[in-house]
Amino acid sequence: MDETAALKAIPMFSSMDEQELAGLRKVMEAKRFLPGQIIIREGEEGAYFYVLMAGVVQYLTADAEGKEIVLDEAGPGSFFGELSMLTGEKRLVRVRAKGDVDTLSLDRQEFHKFLIGHPHAAIDVLTAISRRL
Amino acid sequence: MDETAALKAIPMFSSMDEQELAGLRKVMEAKRFLPGQIIIREGEEGAYFYVLMAGVVQYLTADAEGKEIVLDEAGPGSFFGELSMLTGEKRLVRVRAKGDVDTLSLDRQEFHKFLIGHPHAAIDVLTAISRRL
Ligand SMILES: Nc1ncnc2c1ncn2[C@@H]1O[C@@H]2COP(=O)(O)O[C@H]2[C@H]1O
Ligand SMILES: Nc1ncnc2c1ncn2[C@@H]1O[C@@H]2COP(=O)(O)O[C@H]2[C@H]1O
Repeated sequence: MDETAALKAIPMFSSMDEQELAGLRKVMEAKRFLPGQIIIREGEEGAYFYVLMAGVVQYLTADAEGKEIVLDEAGPGSFFGELSMLTGEKRLVRVRAKGDVDTLSLDRQEFHKFLIGHPHAAIDVLTAISRRL
Repeated sequence: MDETAALKAIPMFSSMDEQELAGLRKVMEAKRFLPGQIIIREGEEGAYFYVLMAGVVQYLTADAEGKEIVLDEAGPGSFFGELSMLTGEKRLVRVRAKGDVDTLSLDRQEFHKFLIGHPHAAIDVLTAISRRL
């Protein structure tokens, strides 16, 4: 499966046609992570929105004694890093690659452009965030 | 100030022109609430999204002993009831009128239509929800 077909298979991008997907792919940057590598560090400024193309990530936080707690895990087709893109606040939680991980990422400006141009995708993001509350 | 001007003053609707605002107002239903009246009951099916036009509301939950806790208060221009519209889940918290309250509401279908037609507003909703996390 080529990359635009893989994007199309993700609910958030499913209403986009070939041409739109190719355009989106062009502004996305591929980033690979090794098992255990930190993708997002809590407390940092956010610069990217990530779509998980392959592998599993863990969302992590720390308890009162600083011990790591796994909040959740997510697999291919999920996305993360949208919160600080939207609010301008610091990253809320740590995101770590569980095994080998492939992502495609959008910077803040491209993420906003994408949401404004694709209301169905914006609603998918809205729904996913709402479920985290 | 007439009602469409009042809507225009709300950030979420500020990018809409006169004609769009008039169209939106037509599908919104005005609902008034008396001091202390429950607008949204936690655990119920959600049917409406509310925009607060006048007055103050309280977001409420209960502690382990069932004692009421005020999570937050919100004034004119804020909105609530979007979560269950988006996720299809039950209402998460109780919303109560603190004094006299005027709202304009959209039913589920009109809310979705509105978000799809107005990506800037969808991003305002996204940002507001993100801040609650
Ligand atoms: N429970 C959670 N709270 C906050 N962020 C979460 C949670 N679960 C997953 N995440 C994701 O982890 C990301 C960390 O960076 P952001 O705060 O930009 O955006 C966050 C969300 O995409
Ligand atoms: N901390 C909060 N958690 C959940 N909902 C909240 C919170 N603060 C305000 N609300 C609003 O209260 C509403 C109750 O109905 P909904 O769950 O549909 O949508 C909810 C939000 O709009």
